Amino acid sequence: MKILMNTELVSRSDAKVDIEDRGYQFGDGIYEVIRVYDGEIFTLDEHMERLERSAKEIKITLPCSLSELKERVKELVSVNAVHDGGIYMQVTRGVSARNHLFPGADVKAQLIAYPVPSKRPEELQKSGVEAMTLEDIRWKRCDIKSLNLLGNILAKQEASEADKFEAVMIRDGIVTEGSSTNFYAVKDGTVYTHPANHYILNGITRMKIIEACGHAGIPFEEKGIRAEDLHQYDEVFISSTTIEVMPVIRLDNLEYSGGRPGPVTQSLQKAFRNLLPGGNVYTQ
Amino acid sequence: MKILMNTELVSRSDAKVDIEDRGYQFGDGIYEVIRVYDGEIFTLDEHMERLERSAKEIKITLPCSLSELKERVKELVSVNAVHDGGIYMQVTRGVSARNHLFPGADVKAQLIAYPVPSKRPEELQKSGVEAMTLEDIRWKRCDIKSLNLLGNILAKQEASEADKFEAVMIRDGIVTEGSSTNFYAVKDGTVYTHPANHYILNGITRMKIIEACGHAGIPFEEKGIRAEDLHQYDEVFISSTTIEVMPVIRLDNLEYSGGRPGPVTQSLQKAFRNLLPGGNVYTQ
Repeated sequence: MKILMNTELVSRSDAKVDIEDRGYQFGDGIYEVIRVYDGEIFTLDEHMERLERSAKEIKITLPCSLSELKERVKELVSVNAVHDGGIYMQVTRGVSARNHLFPGADVKAQLIAYPVPSKRPEELQKSGVEAMTLEDIRWKRCDIKSLNLLGNILAKQEASEADKFEAVMIRDGIVTEGSSTNFYAVKDGTVYTHPANHYILNGITRMKIIEACGHAGIPFEEKGIRAEDLHQYDEVFISSTTIEVMPVIRLDNLEYSGGRPGPVTQSLQKAFRNLLPGGNVYTQ
Repeated sequence: MKILMNTELVSRSDAKVDIEDRGYQFGDGIYEVIRVYDGEIFTLDEHMERLERSAKEIKITLPCSLSELKERVKELVSVNAVHDGGIYMQVTRGVSARNHLFPGADVKAQLIAYPVPSKRPEELQKSGVEAMTLEDIRWKRCDIKSLNLLGNILAKQEASEADKFEAVMIRDGIVTEGSSTNFYAVKDGTVYTHPANHYILNGITRMKIIEACGHAGIPFEEKGIRAEDLHQYDEVFISSTTIEVMPVIRLDNLEYSGGRPGPVTQSLQKAFRNLLPGGNVYTQ
């Protein structure tokens, strides 16, 4: 496997970073996970634009232009012959003697990118998954796709230890998102999800789901769903780059649509698949 | 300079970590900064006990026993001939293919430690510093000394850009702590500070200040100080391992004790210095 480190392609065993990379000491960086379907990179523009936005929000200057970044991702996919999988990319503020304050302009951001395995979880997409709610203890800038992921991994781990697929976070009584997913609930045919503000990541898959809702004629609305109202919804699902549209059939002690993926969720799964490159090779 | 990487001492240029170290991709680790005065390590036991607590809170198994860790810090101080300075130490969950879920028990925690320059800011301790308040947007487990420091560095940077020494954080109307310091206010001779709960780091210097209060006969009380009451206090100061007891003479548009360090703060500075190894070699 070849790893992209800034402008160079290096072998996996040479992919090392300095101990004073600010990513290592402060989590001072941002990232993206991009999906490759059938050899084609999905929503590359959207991921690169979000990376640029995250960088701007924490005042990191990307090491090169977005068009150059896109070329590098394409090169990485090509040189590693990625057919179905993903690309992980992260950018940190660079290497500098440890200090909370940003280093000077001479310190350049550090980029790494490499292929990661990613396989669509088709069985789970058909069966649905179980999830649990947890208090959302993360910071108030979850819109930035940063490397400060301790709150997310602790939640995911706690869910996993309870045999749940995902932790769904509740902040001040409102459902925000999953530990690595966006969250949606369906009522009377309309899909509801948290507004794309500072409390959630504006998922690329979320954007495509809004598009898919349009194609499928499913009404879509942004609103804060109250945890205490969760029992009033007909269906619940989560989404991310790697899991796409994933039905949640049980959330805590609530069961949705008889413990099977509901009809709106299924329609959206289909509408979403139609947006994918090579979508017609997958089970519909 | 020699760097401790797990059990090995390596040269600075060899101190590299893998790109899939979870510290680099999730900020999944913890740290300590330990002060060396006059060749003597200050409060090593307390720092190592806090490291152990932080590790436990996020379920990291330290790579060795606390007594072995202490020996390594002593060896590092010795081999690098640190006389006045600090030791930075961090432990991450280890190197594993990127996944939010914790890796298996075969993945060992990764430790690095190395000397960092640290000089007591005597001029500022005499003159006092200015600070500004900012909203505390960090996560709700600030008691864990973790590598998820983006909220802290963004606040510190914002303060610095406004020519302030520190950002003092306000959560829900209550002063919590500084971006890398604890915060105290003095009224009618009593020192007040936020309770050591999940919203602040329980500073080692804070612990020593409580001890110094005892020695100096200064009443000390834990309480949440309301931001809107800040004007009612006589003195304000902040503390950390590197700045010790630092007077704040201006906070936003409030000036304390005529823009000079107040008498209680000065007494505490003296009482704190008396606790330091080689304390008598410093200006009193």
